[in-house]
Amino acid sequence: MPSIDINCDLGEGYGIYSFGQDREIIGLITSASIACGFHAGGPEQMCETVNLCLQYGVAIGAHPGYPDLQGFGRREIAYSLSEIKNMIIYQVGALAAIAGSLGGRVEYIKPHGALYNTAAVDSLTASAVLEAAAGLGGLPLMVPAGSVIARLAGDQGMIVIREGFADRNYNDDGTLVGRTGGNAIIDSPAKAAAQVVMMARERKITSAGGKKIDLHVDSVCVHGDNSGAVAALKEIRKALAENNITVVKASKVLGD
Amino acid sequence: MPSIDINCDLGEGYGIYSFGQDREIIGLITSASIACGFHAGGPEQMCETVNLCLQYGVAIGAHPGYPDLQGFGRREIAYSLSEIKNMIIYQVGALAAIAGSLGGRVEYIKPHGALYNTAAVDSLTASAVLEAAAGLGGLPLMVPAGSVIARLAGDQGMIVIREGFADRNYNDDGTLVGRTGGNAIIDSPAKAAAQVVMMARERKITSAGGKKIDLHVDSVCVHGDNSGAVAALKEIRKALAENNITVVKASKVLGD
Amino acid sequence: MPSIDINCDLGEGYGIYSFGQDREIIGLITSASIACGFHAGGPEQMCETVNLCLQYGVAIGAHPGYPDLQGFGRREIAYSLSEIKNMIIYQVGALAAIAGSLGGRVEYIKPHGALYNTAAVDSLTASAVLEAAAGLGGLPLMVPAGSVIARLAGDQGMIVIREGFADRNYNDDGTLVGRTGGNAIIDSPAKAAAQVVMMARERKITSAGGKKIDLHVDSVCVHGDNSGAVAALKEIRKALAENNITVVKASKVLGD
Amino acid sequence: MPSIDINCDLGEGYGIYSFGQDREIIGLITSASIACGFHAGGPEQMCETVNLCLQYGVAIGAHPGYPDLQGFGRREIAYSLSEIKNMIIYQVGALAAIAGSLGGRVEYIKPHGALYNTAAVDSLTASAVLEAAAGLGGLPLMVPAGSVIARLAGDQGMIVIREGFADRNYNDDGTLVGRTGGNAIIDSPAKAAAQVVMMARERKITSAGGKKIDLHVDSVCVHGDNSGAVAALKEIRKALAENNITVVKASKVLGD
Repeated sequence: MPSIDINCDLGEGYGIYSFGQDREIIGLITSASIACGFHAGGPEQMCETVNLCLQYGVAIGAHPGYPDLQGFGRREIAYSLSEIKNMIIYQVGALAAIAGSLGGRVEYIKPHGALYNTAAVDSLTASAVLEAAAGLGGLPLMVPAGSVIARLAGDQGMIVIREGFADRNYNDDGTLVGRTGGNAIIDSPAKAAAQVVMMARERKITSAGGKKIDLHVDSVCVHGDNSGAVAALKEIRKALAENNITVVKASKVLGD
Repeated sequence: MPSIDINCDLGEGYGIYSFGQDREIIGLITSASIACGFHAGGPEQMCETVNLCLQYGVAIGAHPGYPDLQGFGRREIAYSLSEIKNMIIYQVGALAAIAGSLGGRVEYIKPHGALYNTAAVDSLTASAVLEAAAGLGGLPLMVPAGSVIARLAGDQGMIVIREGFADRNYNDDGTLVGRTGGNAIIDSPAKAAAQVVMMARERKITSAGGKKIDLHVDSVCVHGDNSGAVAALKEIRKALAENNITVVKASKVLGD
Repeated sequence: MPSIDINCDLGEGYGIYSFGQDREIIGLITSASIACGFHAGGPEQMCETVNLCLQYGVAIGAHPGYPDLQGFGRREIAYSLSEIKNMIIYQVGALAAIAGSLGGRVEYIKPHGALYNTAAVDSLTASAVLEAAAGLGGLPLMVPAGSVIARLAGDQGMIVIREGFADRNYNDDGTLVGRTGGNAIIDSPAKAAAQVVMMARERKITSAGGKKIDLHVDSVCVHGDNSGAVAALKEIRKALAENNITVVKASKVLGD
Repeated sequence: MPSIDINCDLGEGYGIYSFGQDREIIGLITSASIACGFHAGGPEQMCETVNLCLQYGVAIGAHPGYPDLQGFGRREIAYSLSEIKNMIIYQVGALAAIAGSLGGRVEYIKPHGALYNTAAVDSLTASAVLEAAAGLGGLPLMVPAGSVIARLAGDQGMIVIREGFADRNYNDDGTLVGRTGGNAIIDSPAKAAAQVVMMARERKITSAGGKKIDLHVDSVCVHGDNSGAVAALKEIRKALAENNITVVKASKVLGD
């Protein structure tokens, strides 16, 4: 029976600022990528979000980013590889300790924002991220399906959770259609749900050009910071249920 | 045979700023309390300092503080108890992960600055610190000998490393002579060394008032951020050696 | 003809985080107290908020706070008086330059959060705030009517905009009813509006105990960060209009 | 009679961290570029450094940088042009207010670190910096002689203080020899002093390749953060005096 993980970025508020709809979303996902205080979040939010995960049986993922609160970790910053490695270990360790104090544990690492995007295409940055994961006991990395880091991680025998996007169109080569063009986003919840069904059942997608291509996706990401997130998640869950696809956390998908 | 631990705060630089004399001091101490990025330090410095500890066989301690880089964690800030607990777990977890990635492990927690001082006298703050230590698997806490937190920790059966100061005078009740008076500091390295010898051999000190009183000290702190630190450490090591007192890390002192 | 200023704290978002309802509120107020980047806001938000003020003819006020983004400037922090003075001058200068670059100017200073509360009761903190205002060319200070800092500023011949609250009950001595009791907040928009009318027309209020007391209020504050803010502002504007009280920025109220 | 300005970056400490040798250097320079709190410094340090300038009659320059304390403003960060413009206005305004409160005023702006380097070669960044200077009432900009921003500023009729380096070798085209090669630095104080004399007297330098080329330098920069800074400054002052070249702040050089 086919299965897929659904992940969402949670715990992205800061101090008095709230962000996203964690409490509406938590019941609809199987994995939560939790901000670790460098681009968003903080000890209090991390504690609260871990508790939410434990309550709902959702996998706890660490979502480390650049230390750039003002830019929400989305700005490229010229860090050294050593800085990248150590900032990931630092953040994941911080979340691991908070999870541990509440009876949970971190199940995977998903780099955030500019770090995620750069590691997807730059092999040096990817190597630094992989070294961090190795230094953290070989925690699985959640990275874009078809990316440089996914390939490198596979080459090194590391566990990779390959991530796809419900609401993004893909090029014929499996890369995402850039946001600058007019065709990046899949607006229709029905179409997004159909894409997830195909990802889960066939490990394929239909590209923006209409070609059916391989894309091995273990976990599908839904962005929680827009108003349609909950509706999209419900549509996806409904379509997956209708197609007898189970929604389980990534460690179980990988165990297929 | 009597023994004592000698600890110093290390890794207190930030970015391009250096602070202290870590490389001169590391060979003279048995425990290093390492800043965890909130009041000083950061992932890079923590990595470097842990490596120094591993190279010299020095115990790695976590030195969490208030998130107040500008005030070096020395300013009192009105945090909630939950914030105090979680900020400690966060910082210690971060250092634990960095230590783990380098083949080391955190052996104890020593609160820094205003957090150290407040936990020494305020039972609510002390309780939050103890909850953090419990949440971190019961890591030993290094706290002032004779303090509120030392007593509370003992009551709760937690492991406490009782800390004394080589270069500070004590009142008859075992509290430190305040810095506002004229008699707080022991300037003479010889006198400081003699105080440490008495601490280690008799678990007593001679108060500023000339009274010999009980003070059970497991670890003596030498401040690394003044020019005389290295000279003072050498004098202390010499005096301890002459008195056949071994200098070992706190876990071994506690095992006495 | 009686008049009163209505002020609201604006520009309190940070990076991707939004806060308050600046665009709904700007048309209903005469003065905006703009966060200056230490507890909220930043160069971009300040630029945007100043532009909003210029577009609507709203007075630009500087709203400096403690450098505590995580605590939104609401936590008491043990700063020296020199630090308080210089952090105010720094923040107001920053806003003044941004306003200047857009063709505007800062008309007053209103301390934020813990700084506002502490200066209201502590004469040393109040003096540091007054020194900052003096160092900034004697910019008017907006402070609580009846506070220590209001009195001190008057004694020193500085210009003070005395602030009252539409939705807060007052004690017989003119101080605010504390939030810990059950009677701090005026929930009814009609009652809040009536209180503002009395403030403007008679420079008096009816205390929680039912006593009519003097309270010379030049500007009334409405908190913009709750869902009822716009409705409350409309109710107040309506009541003031019905009573022929003009709503003008503080400099004009003071010119009465 | 030829003249030249000597500038140095001052006020680059942070909190408890000191940096540079401000008190040894202040008597040997005519302009101080003062860190404004984003990459180093802060309200207290700015106040202290402005006082030092006023005491010694040294021109006060604003030295704004990227908000990157950990990287000391030396890391390239992908800011928008609006962010660059507003962060400069913010920082210069903050220093202007502090200077104003002490009886001084900001005489020029010198971008710091990555901002300085990027504006030197990238015309979009340069334009944002020029817009900031225009928004600050047309304050003179101190930028590298021969750079993109120097040329653009001239085209726009803005006042530019063209900066040269005492201890750096130049290429035949007037750009600096890169630090990656082996020939970037002039180690000999005597040669550095001779280069400054030629800059001041002839507005020329001898390139690394031995060619005499035009380089119109109004102000020569000496880096204050190395141990030889004071010795180099004394050597330069001596050589300038021997050659009857006056050392005056940039506004007077420009008035030649």
